[in-house]
Amino acid sequence: MFKVQFQPDGLSTHVPEGMTVLAAAEQVGIVLNSVCGGRGTCGKCLVEVEGEAAPVKACLHVVARDMVVTIPETSRFFEQKILSAGTSGPVGLRPGVEKYFVQPAEPSLDDLRSDSERLLAAVNAQRSDILCNNVTLSALRQLPLICRQNGFSLTAVCRNQEIFAVEAGDTRESLWGLAVDVGTTTVVVSLLNLRDGEIVATSARTNPQVSFGDDVISRIEASRTTENGLQILQKRIIEGLNQLIDELCQKTGVEPDQIYEITVAGNTTMEHLLLGVSVGQIAQAPYIGAFSSAVNVTANNLGLNINPSGNVYVFPGVAAHVGGDTIAVILATRLDEPSEIHLAIDIGTNGELALSNGKHLAACSTAAGPAFEGARIRHGMRGAAGAIERVFIREDVEVATIGDGPPTGICGSGLIDALAELLQAGILDSSGRFLTVEELPDSVSPALRERLCSYDGQAAFILVHPSASKHGQAIVLSQRDVREAQVGKAAISAGLEMLLRHLKVSTMQIDRLYLAGAFGNYIRPQSARRIGLLPDIPLAKIFFVGNAAADGARLALLDITQRRRAEEIARRVDYLELAGTMDFQHLFSEKMFFPEP
Amino acid sequence: MFKVQFQPDGLSTHVPEGMTVLAAAEQVGIVLNSVCGGRGTCGKCLVEVEGEAAPVKACLHVVARDMVVTIPETSRFFEQKILSAGTSGPVGLRPGVEKYFVQPAEPSLDDLRSDSERLLAAVNAQRSDILCNNVTLSALRQLPLICRQNGFSLTAVCRNQEIFAVEAGDTRESLWGLAVDVGTTTVVVSLLNLRDGEIVATSARTNPQVSFGDDVISRIEASRTTENGLQILQKRIIEGLNQLIDELCQKTGVEPDQIYEITVAGNTTMEHLLLGVSVGQIAQAPYIGAFSSAVNVTANNLGLNINPSGNVYVFPGVAAHVGGDTIAVILATRLDEPSEIHLAIDIGTNGELALSNGKHLAACSTAAGPAFEGARIRHGMRGAAGAIERVFIREDVEVATIGDGPPTGICGSGLIDALAELLQAGILDSSGRFLTVEELPDSVSPALRERLCSYDGQAAFILVHPSASKHGQAIVLSQRDVREAQVGKAAISAGLEMLLRHLKVSTMQIDRLYLAGAFGNYIRPQSARRIGLLPDIPLAKIFFVGNAAADGARLALLDITQRRRAEEIARRVDYLELAGTMDFQHLFSEKMFFPEP
Repeated sequence: MFKVQFQPDGLSTHVPEGMTVLAAAEQVGIVLNSVCGGRGTCGKCLVEVEGEAAPVKACLHVVARDMVVTIPETSRFFEQKILSAGTSGPVGLRPGVEKYFVQPAEPSLDDLRSDSERLLAAVNAQRSDILCNNVTLSALRQLPLICRQNGFSLTAVCRNQEIFAVEAGDTRESLWGLAVDVGTTTVVVSLLNLRDGEIVATSARTNPQVSFGDDVISRIEASRTTENGLQILQKRIIEGLNQLIDELCQKTGVEPDQIYEITVAGNTTMEHLLLGVSVGQIAQAPYIGAFSSAVNVTANNLGLNINPSGNVYVFPGVAAHVGGDTIAVILATRLDEPSEIHLAIDIGTNGELALSNGKHLAACSTAAGPAFEGARIRHGMRGAAGAIERVFIREDVEVATIGDGPPTGICGSGLIDALAELLQAGILDSSGRFLTVEELPDSVSPALRERLCSYDGQAAFILVHPSASKHGQAIVLSQRDVREAQVGKAAISAGLEMLLRHLKVSTMQIDRLYLAGAFGNYIRPQSARRIGLLPDIPLAKIFFVGNAAADGARLALLDITQRRRAEEIARRVDYLELAGTMDFQHLFSEKMFFPEP
Repeated sequence: MFKVQFQPDGLSTHVPEGMTVLAAAEQVGIVLNSVCGGRGTCGKCLVEVEGEAAPVKACLHVVARDMVVTIPETSRFFEQKILSAGTSGPVGLRPGVEKYFVQPAEPSLDDLRSDSERLLAAVNAQRSDILCNNVTLSALRQLPLICRQNGFSLTAVCRNQEIFAVEAGDTRESLWGLAVDVGTTTVVVSLLNLRDGEIVATSARTNPQVSFGDDVISRIEASRTTENGLQILQKRIIEGLNQLIDELCQKTGVEPDQIYEITVAGNTTMEHLLLGVSVGQIAQAPYIGAFSSAVNVTANNLGLNINPSGNVYVFPGVAAHVGGDTIAVILATRLDEPSEIHLAIDIGTNGELALSNGKHLAACSTAAGPAFEGARIRHGMRGAAGAIERVFIREDVEVATIGDGPPTGICGSGLIDALAELLQAGILDSSGRFLTVEELPDSVSPALRERLCSYDGQAAFILVHPSASKHGQAIVLSQRDVREAQVGKAAISAGLEMLLRHLKVSTMQIDRLYLAGAFGNYIRPQSARRIGLLPDIPLAKIFFVGNAAADGARLALLDITQRRRAEEIARRVDYLELAGTMDFQHLFSEKMFFPEP
């Protein structure tokens, strides 16, 4: 084990030989930029290692000795300004909590007001518009002591017209909030200073519910079939969040009690599970959630370790399959604002699509299937070291892997690349069929011809020969793999077509396409466009917006008018339920075909 | 042990020989009228005992065999209409909760609204004015199951614009609330049907905090000096209330979950302790409570065993010594309404007085001392069996005791009687001094002259000769006892004088005097007036209003506009702090004198 120290954070950890600096940093809660997902390609995670002449990529540099690592601000995850691509204006700073430092007169026989009356009068003397009219019971319980602890010099913490906490002395400097993105796979929590809007730290971790299954459906199933499943799943995510909160507080020195607000964006199932609300009906037609409006609840009620009277704001959604995360994406990409035609796509197991024709908003969700996450693909894998993520076909096949080591399988972005290149080379036809060697056009080289084979009784294409792969076995793309990918791309493009029709817009009219979510950052848009996963629009109109759901949660944290906007969006969005409609079925079959070259 | 059955309740119990029927009834939770406090004098507790020719007084009739007792409605405690004496109009029925039975369309692919949207729309279709806009998290947690348990046929329970509970099927028939009077000594809880305003049952018990001391000061002391004292005192009263709630539910068959509202009136200390708010500052000059506004809190938060989302409304007060109980008394006696001059007095260890001059309200509290509760009096005792409660002086002394047995001591009402009679006989002069035998007027009989004696070195008057008392010892009233009583009466009448002066009213102008509280029912008003404890006004203007604080709590339970009225009263009342003011000190000395005959 070697000791790794991080500067200027002053944090250190011990890690086994061979762990990357990126992983070591995560261990102490420092999240680095990794637009490429730690594949060594984006160069966003540069750090300075004592003894090295030049900065190194944290995702590639492995620990082989004790070391001191200095991390520049520019390499830190989420330190960038909210949404450089999507925003159309500055974010206001109107947090849901306010602090007032007051020094009311001490009680005397001439001034017998109770502590709460005295406090309210002093606070209201500083408010011009709407006056406070209530002190909550939990604040009342603190009040007599806090008043007298510091000679009637105290800070009131207010939400709306209510004082919900009191603190001795002047604590106005400490006003913190958390923005949370609860994904099915990953949970990201950012700590923000509500005084200036600064993101001071971000931590991320795997959603601890994954042990109950990778996807939403398996979580719902677990909630139904496990004893106290719902409670257990809720407990897991709450514990996971508390761990991240604890990390953030330790890293920054912020007191949990001085975090007063949390905003949470998640898909419908994640939000229900977080709140301990039954999800059984989400998995069965006609797919109904218990709620779709925003929910406000105290931190104490959920067991989240911030100020017990802190408020947790859970994003509104539209329907079981278009949840708060999609609303947060629309909020962050400002799809509700422009008079142009904007489209946001978040590709995962479900593809969520939202379209604005400049006036109206519509959204839908399609079961894209797990092909683009590497599942149900013969040699598919998640985007980890050894996964083929780029495929180039010229005279022969060239592949690039995450981490640049010998390939072990293929991930989603590699799959899209491979399909695009095979189409381009004329090895796959637009129906998705591998041509036979006899049918191949003359332009196909002998090296490529040799790669066409039969695998498990199907036509297949050898991407990596056994000698070049890590485990000495061929990595192939089979006919069935192509079909899986076709299903996924058909679902998404049919969903898009439904939205376009609904809002009477053509593909050509799309002014901007926002590609949201982790996956969006990894794919080559030209390949995705080639296979028809993305519509045929100029690349210049495609914007990668990263974790836009987390950005939306931050907007709502910093500015309560953004919450009203999110609720307005949720009401305005036309939801298209695709399951079972004839139009969609028809389009879906049509879109199984790849675009002609 | 004998078995006693109560009809028409159908309840039975086993009691030892010699217990009164009143006590046996209490054992099964039936509270009988006992205006006289179970002394056998008021005749309000008449019951029919099988085998007895005529109705008997339950407080005197002892159990000496198995028996069946039938209790007429007229003998039940609190079954009478709210405040026959004080009310000036009918009570409205506008409870804080409403129920809506709804049968929304079931979800389908054409109607994908979430459960909560569906519910809100169905409820709002039945509301004409202000629409509901929120479903609380606890209701959301019940909603999916409740919807589907009964084919989307359910009842929503609403408060303000919020649905806070849902129940399967049509439960509109069950809508209950509790009115609570938390006294320092006694806790009274009434169960009311919020559909028709009927009081269906009432239970009372000793405040379980009494083991920490009889009075407010000793409770405050205990909260400070006992480890976790505040929490323990709170726990005690909550447990006591839960026991009463349990009794009421068992007696009536009402489900605790279908009780949705509680209103509580108590003095400032009792309300603070109930809510778990520190009371330390109430006992120290300048006597400041943590709050004086009304407090709303969920039953769940306090641990009260009704519907967990039920609301507990705690009455607003004015100052540390004029609390929610006084506001409830003003509410019930409608002191804020009339254009006449009305006075309400509640005599206990503290005497609380509220005066209206038809336009303005003023209130004060005076430390009457415990003399009228039998404490600090040589042979004083509480109003229990054997206590002298009536004294007549003609040629000699005649006394009447509670229970009519041989006397063992003297209680508050007996003390007042004795003082009035001694003044009238010319044995005490208006300064409160016992005349010497030589000074006595000729009208004083030899038998009375013989009763003047010296006791512990002081002048004293023998009320009961040793031979007539239960324990064979004389029961005397000493000069010091007279002084104690003078202090009490001086405090109250000086307080009244301060109020009269403040509102520029004279005694003669008082149109009505409401005597509230248990003690008020026991005293002879002419005696209280004779010694100057009550002002010199015609007896016809004096009204006994019993437990007016409990009545006020019931008003606020049945009609939320009465809560706004209570809050308005609390804001309007001029509070006079008497402690330490020169005027009061001066008046207090003056009022030490008894009125001239």
